[in-house]
Amino acid sequence: MAEYIAPLQRLIDEFRRLPGIGGKTAVRLAFSVVSGSEEAAESFSEAILRAKREIKTCRRCCNMSEGDLCPVCSDLDRDGGIVCVVEDARDVMAMERVRDYRGTYHVLGGALSPMNGIGPDSLHIKELLARLEDEEIREVILATNPTVEGEATAMYLARLLAPFSVKVTRLAYGIPVGGDLEYADEVTLHRAMTGRQTID
Amino acid sequence: MAEYIAPLQRLIDEFRRLPGIGGKTAVRLAFSVVSGSEEAAESFSEAILRAKREIKTCRRCCNMSEGDLCPVCSDLDRDGGIVCVVEDARDVMAMERVRDYRGTYHVLGGALSPMNGIGPDSLHIKELLARLEDEEIREVILATNPTVEGEATAMYLARLLAPFSVKVTRLAYGIPVGGDLEYADEVTLHRAMTGRQTID
Repeated sequence: MAEYIAPLQRLIDEFRRLPGIGGKTAVRLAFSVVSGSEEAAESFSEAILRAKREIKTCRRCCNMSEGDLCPVCSDLDRDGGIVCVVEDARDVMAMERVRDYRGTYHVLGGALSPMNGIGPDSLHIKELLARLEDEEIREVILATNPTVEGEATAMYLARLLAPFSVKVTRLAYGIPVGGDLEYADEVTLHRAMTGRQTID
Repeated sequence: MAEYIAPLQRLIDEFRRLPGIGGKTAVRLAFSVVSGSEEAAESFSEAILRAKREIKTCRRCCNMSEGDLCPVCSDLDRDGGIVCVVEDARDVMAMERVRDYRGTYHVLGGALSPMNGIGPDSLHIKELLARLEDEEIREVILATNPTVEGEATAMYLARLLAPFSVKVTRLAYGIPVGGDLEYADEVTLHRAMTGRQTID
């Protein structure tokens, strides 16, 4: 033998397809599923199918949603005048954990990356422009990631939004709270210096 | 919100149940399933069900098996006179990768651990004793893990097998090949010393 029996190998291969799961981890996970109860395997299997089938895209902000509108968009207490533009649904969750943002979101579904064939048409940019036409938006916060792609996307959007009478802002860069100056990279330190604020 | 929508949260919870998968990893894996294609999700879901349903226990050695007998037990070229006793099916795979062992196995399904309520009855020990009665076994190699539980299990089995006219051996302990004396722990070094062999 020296090979796993077919149904086990297939499950190992499925686990390996997941991001950050290497060969040994895939084997450990597959064995754990096989050693568990039949109910546990059925529940896991069903959760995968249901998550894939029941999660849709919010008609307004392109966030993940069970219904036509995502929980943020269907919350009437949120301020529709402010739109925070993020790369993906995980970023919405990160912002929501802060709890003091009461505006809405717009999920791009990624960042511009011409090298990987991701141009403006691959992102939910036209949906954002449509919202600027239809809704009364006062401010667009560009909250893409502080990476090369995220930056390029923010710059692209800033230029695209210039003709609209809307305030366009970007998240502040600086040293992370609890971080150590000594370990901050030069670019971050430079941004922290140029973005310095008066203490009143 | 600040909580994931229900089908996503359920999938995250399922991933978190797997060994060694923490909160952040579970979120990453769940998002990856949801972002993937419907076919990928179906294939993953089905692989889990099939692995659980199609993998049985070998009637003879208690190894994982698709059929009544596992690939090793159904291989007529294997020497049925030698039985290598291991804790679980993963250990069979590890031994098989060495490629020079041509005997059979016996999978205990764990190691004795009274603290966790795992006594001799929880392991496939009576199946091993039945094999000693029914088959012509010359040697039993105790290849449980070199942990406290594995050691205790090996000692327990050695005592249990004493009345049978069978040679009982244990895997050699020593410094791992490619290892460094400096980094070997005291117990391993002590075992390597006491188990030292004449060079001829």
